[in-house]
Amino acid sequence: MAPDSLAAFLEQTRIQIDGALERHLPKPPACPAIVSEAMRYSVFAGGKRLRPTLTLAAADAVSHVAQVSASDVAQVSASDVAQVFRPAVGSVAAAARLAVELALPAACAVEMIHTYSLIHDDLPAMDNDTLRRGRPTLHVVYGDGIAVLAGDGLQAEAFALLAREPAGDDPALVARKLRVVRVVADAAGPNGMVGGQAIDLQSVGQAPGHSTPLDADGLRAMHARKTGAMIRASAVAGAIMAGADDRLVASVDRYAAEIGLAFQIVDDILDVEGSAEELGKTAGKDAAEAKPTYPALYGLARSKALAAECVARATEALTQAGLVDGHLGSIADWIVSRKN
Amino acid sequence: MAPDSLAAFLEQTRIQIDGALERHLPKPPACPAIVSEAMRYSVFAGGKRLRPTLTLAAADAVSHVAQVSASDVAQVSASDVAQVFRPAVGSVAAAARLAVELALPAACAVEMIHTYSLIHDDLPAMDNDTLRRGRPTLHVVYGDGIAVLAGDGLQAEAFALLAREPAGDDPALVARKLRVVRVVADAAGPNGMVGGQAIDLQSVGQAPGHSTPLDADGLRAMHARKTGAMIRASAVAGAIMAGADDRLVASVDRYAAEIGLAFQIVDDILDVEGSAEELGKTAGKDAAEAKPTYPALYGLARSKALAAECVARATEALTQAGLVDGHLGSIADWIVSRKN
Repeated sequence: MAPDSLAAFLEQTRIQIDGALERHLPKPPACPAIVSEAMRYSVFAGGKRLRPTLTLAAADAVSHVAQVSASDVAQVSASDVAQVFRPAVGSVAAAARLAVELALPAACAVEMIHTYSLIHDDLPAMDNDTLRRGRPTLHVVYGDGIAVLAGDGLQAEAFALLAREPAGDDPALVARKLRVVRVVADAAGPNGMVGGQAIDLQSVGQAPGHSTPLDADGLRAMHARKTGAMIRASAVAGAIMAGADDRLVASVDRYAAEIGLAFQIVDDILDVEGSAEELGKTAGKDAAEAKPTYPALYGLARSKALAAECVARATEALTQAGLVDGHLGSIADWIVSRKN
Repeated sequence: MAPDSLAAFLEQTRIQIDGALERHLPKPPACPAIVSEAMRYSVFAGGKRLRPTLTLAAADAVSHVAQVSASDVAQVSASDVAQVFRPAVGSVAAAARLAVELALPAACAVEMIHTYSLIHDDLPAMDNDTLRRGRPTLHVVYGDGIAVLAGDGLQAEAFALLAREPAGDDPALVARKLRVVRVVADAAGPNGMVGGQAIDLQSVGQAPGHSTPLDADGLRAMHARKTGAMIRASAVAGAIMAGADDRLVASVDRYAAEIGLAFQIVDDILDVEGSAEELGKTAGKDAAEAKPTYPALYGLARSKALAAECVARATEALTQAGLVDGHLGSIADWIVSRKN
């Protein structure tokens, strides 16, 4: 059962996520040692695990909405995973535990995709970052070629995992897994994350096309793709795996779109206000590179107010859907109060 | 209905594949123009379309095995795609047409993955190729950053397409699509294509780890990952989408493993014997870079004999499974007789 405090929930889910990543990442001899090592170097580099935490928190939250958890247990009761939980079926705690267990592979998959995007973004061909989370970036240690491949491999493995786990051929489970493949692939792809990074490259003159600085609308649209799409997909994947109906999935999506934008605004603010020690990366880098940011466009005070407005709208989406139990609300608060 | 001659089949499937790729590749405004343009530059660069042709040929071939096509039509008759074919259901020609139509999105997906792998392999961080199929490589035209992103986007879009098409929520269709996602992701990932490319980089000293030249077993294992895995997945995906049972899928897989190796051996031979004009790329590049090749290890005559042996075993796998109608056999012959 999910612990009451956010801190305890974050601690518990981190252990679950890291354990599942360790189990699911390819290993020798099936996987060449250098690829396995390179993927692990970046996956276990001490990230916040925001996206997989959202996946599990969304699964947990929708399981508390009684009618969903009841139909869910009925729907997946034939699957392999559900066998484990059968003795306890019927209680809210068991429904929440089942929901989180069903969503755990998707949580790992979105973190693999996030990690691959960081590896590729750090390449000399893109942002040319040599330090991330206080450690040398992957290409500095393994070379650019292996960094490209480790990223490519993490993306492929994410989809392999989504298709493979949770195991079982119950039609409802199979349908959920395929739906999550589509949601995650759309979010990660050209219309989502990849497209956002391309716009970012263009905006700083690193790619052919218009290199004029982004205005406020352009900045919001770029972030909606670059970070927003995968944050939404992360939460939505958890809701789908836990058996949420379309109305609940839409509410989780609205919530996640708001906190995704808040997260990005706060990132920009921390780049101005934070120290390199707290951030684990170079502070002030955005301004030095003339990257478009919220503080540059709106100033610090207005940027903070914009982030708070996002959180208010996110909370409203939860309240309207009755998603009041669980940790989605406190995760939204944590996103704007974080220091790194 | 599939034409009788291989040439007519290749021509017909090329039109189908190119048309479907055109329809399915992301477009503006959903996709930023530069990413859409870059992906199309490489996807429509005049490749052989070997992998998607195998997908469609495998779908066509298994549809000719009477008991499969009959059960297939029954299984998918509730899906959206099958509606189109319902009036004609019952004839062998209709079953073949349905099978190919069901497999067409998977054919596009494997070609997108193949194209992404070429884009990334050509990067300065990897093989550093500036010419492919007689045209400048993508990174030469769009820069390294967009080339990385176009490849990343093609991989994501391949999985989005596999999950999305053919549309329909018939449980049998959904199960086939999820199975194909897994097969393709496993083949493309760290245990497959990505792992093979990493071993290739190591073998020429471009990545940390042992840089000793590969011996015969090492060379075969590298190719089994780097090109073999996706060639197998391409054929297997077609068989699965067409409704083949496990025994037939295994036979198609055995066939494809043999022709995949034959294809690679012939590639190595052509690099020695071919002209740049015929190949559309620099001939003799392998030897110049001291890349391990079949001719280097076995000599030209023995390499040709090895390729012929692969084709003989591929044909044997087809015969044993009763997969004698269709074009898989003649594709195997074409692979060893091709000049580019």
